Amino acid sequence: MGHPHLDVRRAVRTALADLPDGATVLVACSGGADSLSLAAATAWVAARAGLRAGAVCIDHGLQAGSAQRARSTAAALCGGLGLDPVVTVHLDASRGPDGPEGNARSARYAALTASAARVGAAAVLLGHTLDDQAETVLLGLARGSGPRSLSGMADRSGLVRRPLLALRRDVVRAALPAGLTPWEDPHNEDAAYARARVRHRVLPVLEAELGPGVAEALARTADLARADADALDAQAAAVLAALADPASPASPDSGVDHGEGRVPARREADLLHDQQSEGAGLDVAGLAELPRAVRWRVLRRAAIAAGSPPTDLTAAHVAAVDALVTAWRGQAGIDVPGGLRATRRDGRLHIAPSKGDGGR
Amino acid sequence: MGHPHLDVRRAVRTALADLPDGATVLVACSGGADSLSLAAATAWVAARAGLRAGAVCIDHGLQAGSAQRARSTAAALCGGLGLDPVVTVHLDASRGPDGPEGNARSARYAALTASAARVGAAAVLLGHTLDDQAETVLLGLARGSGPRSLSGMADRSGLVRRPLLALRRDVVRAALPAGLTPWEDPHNEDAAYARARVRHRVLPVLEAELGPGVAEALARTADLARADADALDAQAAAVLAALADPASPASPDSGVDHGEGRVPARREADLLHDQQSEGAGLDVAGLAELPRAVRWRVLRRAAIAAGSPPTDLTAAHVAAVDALVTAWRGQAGIDVPGGLRATRRDGRLHIAPSKGDGGR
Repeated sequence: MGHPHLDVRRAVRTALADLPDGATVLVACSGGADSLSLAAATAWVAARAGLRAGAVCIDHGLQAGSAQRARSTAAALCGGLGLDPVVTVHLDASRGPDGPEGNARSARYAALTASAARVGAAAVLLGHTLDDQAETVLLGLARGSGPRSLSGMADRSGLVRRPLLALRRDVVRAALPAGLTPWEDPHNEDAAYARARVRHRVLPVLEAELGPGVAEALARTADLARADADALDAQAAAVLAALADPASPASPDSGVDHGEGRVPARREADLLHDQQSEGAGLDVAGLAELPRAVRWRVLRRAAIAAGSPPTDLTAAHVAAVDALVTAWRGQAGIDVPGGLRATRRDGRLHIAPSKGDGGR
Repeated sequence: MGHPHLDVRRAVRTALADLPDGATVLVACSGGADSLSLAAATAWVAARAGLRAGAVCIDHGLQAGSAQRARSTAAALCGGLGLDPVVTVHLDASRGPDGPEGNARSARYAALTASAARVGAAAVLLGHTLDDQAETVLLGLARGSGPRSLSGMADRSGLVRRPLLALRRDVVRAALPAGLTPWEDPHNEDAAYARARVRHRVLPVLEAELGPGVAEALARTADLARADADALDAQAAAVLAALADPASPASPDSGVDHGEGRVPARREADLLHDQQSEGAGLDVAGLAELPRAVRWRVLRRAAIAAGSPPTDLTAAHVAAVDALVTAWRGQAGIDVPGGLRATRRDGRLHIAPSKGDGGR
């Protein structure tokens, strides 16, 4: 693999190239091999690029003794690498709606953002590798919710950057400086977690049966699927705004935004109000002209704007609502999660609280 | 699994519901369990739906004795089911550019279409199941060429229909009438073929590690990815036509076709001529405004129209051409497979034969 430490440093340098002199970056470091390798490379690069590099060490509260670990080993290792400041955060992920893994993830991102704000950091760096991306794609594939669920992790999203996303895990680990002893989260090895099963049992079989390039192919798929989903989501947002407004002179076509912009939040809020007050609804003729990929996204977005919980709203619900548009034979309304009902009246589609709920 | 023969008959009945009285359908039957089950169900449904059902039995020439087989067992089994006419076709797939599997596939579709024309059939039915679809998605994933390669097989495409695409293979096989003995193509069991490896080694591991719904999730992914790719491909075709024509008053936005139409063949031919004669090129400012998912498709399409062989043109080539649009720093041209070169001049992007090839 050539010179892994050079590959990792180059990846970090590229990821930070746009930051102004003197800017602060934080490496999110668990003490595990990937994030520790990232921390070491970032310390090296920052010192030579006129940047200030710190670390944020998170304790997820998932296992006994981890608080002690976050406050000592990971933080101590980062301090030893010359990272400054080193912020430690304690998170309790034992409660919440998304299960221990999901809660830990949401709380983690909130804590990273808060830590960045506290120290005025311009970016937070995460140590996800190409292998993590491939695992994410396989987990999305197993959910079967389409290209968005295959689109994995972005190399940049808000404050977060993932400099190692194009590097294999073995390269990142080989770059770890001698003398640094990483600490592996036991959950990474625990086959009870789907990601660990993908890492240790699924991906090795795919590589053995389909060729050693499978992880890279999965990462390319993520990149292309993300671009497709971004483009179609942006179109759906623009089309929804045009179709929801009966006073708009715009045809759905002219509402298409080829940039990756989104409908402004205020506009979505107006729409939400229209929907909940059984407002104008959506023009069915305009919906029917859309390609299915855009129409389904418009309907999904309209249901969520009307109050349907995104996690409960499946493709099957959207398909049933779509039948009101594309297979109309005077049928009754369709129940939509969140106590809503989709109905078609006078050429317009309405998604609003079921009458059975007292119109609320 | 309830009553598999009822499930299979219902699927066939639904797939043929739009055909007029007296129409002929052909079942493509290899003698294998899936296509034989489809043949039996089609014979039953057609007799009660006022349709005429025949069969087409193809010998791929892949193994010794298969010609004998195609002319005897599969055809004899279909005749015994009451299918009429039974057409047998001999194919030699040993030569051609796509390897034995690819050649056999292209030749097979051509033969099916020719057979349908010969007997005036309104549809040709293929026995692909949900399991075949899941395998196709995994093979596409291993190629890593994005959502189009994940979109699997359509339930309808031209004359071809796949009535069993939503049914598991074990249901289809359980529906096989007693007394009918299918013949399995030894290649299905031969681990030298990627599809066989996916069937016997990859999919079982995915189901064991990620849950029994993985095959269905892969099939849903195929359906959603197909819709996305259709929408974006149609947009790219329309945008390419608008950008290629400097006299067109249309902005790229207004060139978007929200229906799933394609640019007419004549228009693509005109463009090809423009490109090859180093014509107007594509407006770079218009390209730069497009979301990446559409822009990459426009560039890919433009390269193919200029003569680049689709199988040689990778996402990496398209990304390099894209840099002429999005990361312009006066760089020289980019070589494109097929002896072509992409260059940017005066705000327009040209893809044309390399000068080194004598301008041809």
